[in-house]
Amino acid sequence: MRIVVDAHGGDNAPLEIIKGCYMAVNELKDISILLVGQKNQLQQIMTDNGLPSSKIEIVDAPDIITMEDEPTSILKEKQYSSMAVAFKMLKEDKADAFVSAGNSGAILVGATLLIKRIRGIKRAALGAVMPSLEGPYIMLDCGANVECKPEYLDQFATMGSIYMKSCLKMENPRVALLNNGTEECKGPELQQDAHKLLKKNQGINFIGNIEGRDVPLGGCDVLVADGFSGNITLKVSEGWGKLMSGALKDMLTKNIKSKIAALLIMSQIKEFRRKMDYKEYGGAPLLGVTKPVIKAHGSSDAKAFKNAIRQACTFAESNMILEIEKFLAEE
Amino acid sequence: MRIVVDAHGGDNAPLEIIKGCYMAVNELKDISILLVGQKNQLQQIMTDNGLPSSKIEIVDAPDIITMEDEPTSILKEKQYSSMAVAFKMLKEDKADAFVSAGNSGAILVGATLLIKRIRGIKRAALGAVMPSLEGPYIMLDCGANVECKPEYLDQFATMGSIYMKSCLKMENPRVALLNNGTEECKGPELQQDAHKLLKKNQGINFIGNIEGRDVPLGGCDVLVADGFSGNITLKVSEGWGKLMSGALKDMLTKNIKSKIAALLIMSQIKEFRRKMDYKEYGGAPLLGVTKPVIKAHGSSDAKAFKNAIRQACTFAESNMILEIEKFLAEE
Repeated sequence: MRIVVDAHGGDNAPLEIIKGCYMAVNELKDISILLVGQKNQLQQIMTDNGLPSSKIEIVDAPDIITMEDEPTSILKEKQYSSMAVAFKMLKEDKADAFVSAGNSGAILVGATLLIKRIRGIKRAALGAVMPSLEGPYIMLDCGANVECKPEYLDQFATMGSIYMKSCLKMENPRVALLNNGTEECKGPELQQDAHKLLKKNQGINFIGNIEGRDVPLGGCDVLVADGFSGNITLKVSEGWGKLMSGALKDMLTKNIKSKIAALLIMSQIKEFRRKMDYKEYGGAPLLGVTKPVIKAHGSSDAKAFKNAIRQACTFAESNMILEIEKFLAEE
Repeated sequence: MRIVVDAHGGDNAPLEIIKGCYMAVNELKDISILLVGQKNQLQQIMTDNGLPSSKIEIVDAPDIITMEDEPTSILKEKQYSSMAVAFKMLKEDKADAFVSAGNSGAILVGATLLIKRIRGIKRAALGAVMPSLEGPYIMLDCGANVECKPEYLDQFATMGSIYMKSCLKMENPRVALLNNGTEECKGPELQQDAHKLLKKNQGINFIGNIEGRDVPLGGCDVLVADGFSGNITLKVSEGWGKLMSGALKDMLTKNIKSKIAALLIMSQIKEFRRKMDYKEYGGAPLLGVTKPVIKAHGSSDAKAFKNAIRQACTFAESNMILEIEKFLAEE
């Protein structure tokens, strides 16, 4: 599996990205990495950190897309950026999947305009794989489309369901619509109309509306939302994860008694942290385009980035995109 | 202070409501409670539980509004329900404030059509007082208006700000708009237009957009949202609170070692639980109507309901409604 990586995306680029790539080539089978970025700088970092340059192929790209750049800059001013060059390699079949922790808007523009959407898909959706008490679920859209139509949500549901089947090997994922009440008639017009379409969608196991409080408790496997409320849900969840992690730390380091308590429950804490750590699940797949594209979390460290690469491999090995095409052809 | 209470609202009515009323008359100064509901049943419960009937005045109402009833039933079929009768007593100045843990839609209809909105207020908003790492904040609207206009959000901001000043004695509350990015241009059209109005609003300390992740960490004192995304934020937060509470319990009761750990950090756990318990802060004030109305949480136990009564007293003692009228007159 050949993964093309944008070396300059994310808060901790390029060092943590490079380290993540090394972790991936050491841990994963049959993988080769094409690292796109400013060659001299990347080589220097590898030398400084004692990383053997033989294991990863560097592809030179002179420019960088920053978080401040306009998303469309990837097509014009920044067409020689690491992200743009990486997308072109994916397009030209020089790689099987793409990973970047960079500017989400630019990834979306690059994926939809350079790689193209699957024929029949109205909008590509960013799907976040999130932790819940009962295991991971995918939420989509989580920010690519702030204004949605009911048909988009219906397609998000299909794509999310196929993702959970193909990539997470879930048999009959429960699809739910994020809403402010469980009754069919609840919510704004968009949610009411989407509910009707989802009920008729034969390709999914639609269990109805879901309220926010049941989401972290594991009430569904595919959470369908417009990009605005999806983004709010994603980020409120991240905030609570951070709060919880900070609170646990405070409680367990306050004094000598609490430090002893920490030692006594260390294994449970670790297990819980691992279960609720969204970095474990990799990044956010961009669903609805013709090639596997993964948006790694902007704050990815080496381990999180390695997990995003692993996820890209799983995505590329799956028949996910074919399944979406098949579903659309049957409709 | 005379508080009129709907005895039959909420999951634990009427027993926990009655107990909450007794806690309130015992703990709070200068308070009298008018408990509206099925007189015989209420008296029987008081007798069965050894509660002195002298302390609370019961007002008979034959009917009950259930969660399944249409909100507008309060005006017609259910005009002799405990909630409707309680609203009428508030309207006729037989009470200074109203508390119910019942059907939110019916409370909204009752408050806006029986009590009336403040002149100039376009929509009443349900404001939830929520815990964050840095203390309580108010979020509004959290469900009364799923479809909003920018002007509504602007008024929500003013009302929330006045509430935090008048009732929580906060000096210069930081008002933020819930959005999917901090930049001014972010979000759907509603949020973009609301942002412009909020920037111009001279009566508030507007600090800009806030992303979901900063909300539980205490990034603002007044969180302005449309009723749909506000409701999602509220409920996702509740879900995480529940998750956290359950996870802590699991960790600390797994085996003998973890039970010892629990004893060692008991005081920290209690402190944290108290800080993050939304029941501590009472219920949700309905802002924008001419009298103090508090919606207690549907799952309120006696203590939560007592806190909602305390909140109703604070609301009624404050000059909150006058301040809103003053602000609107100056505009």
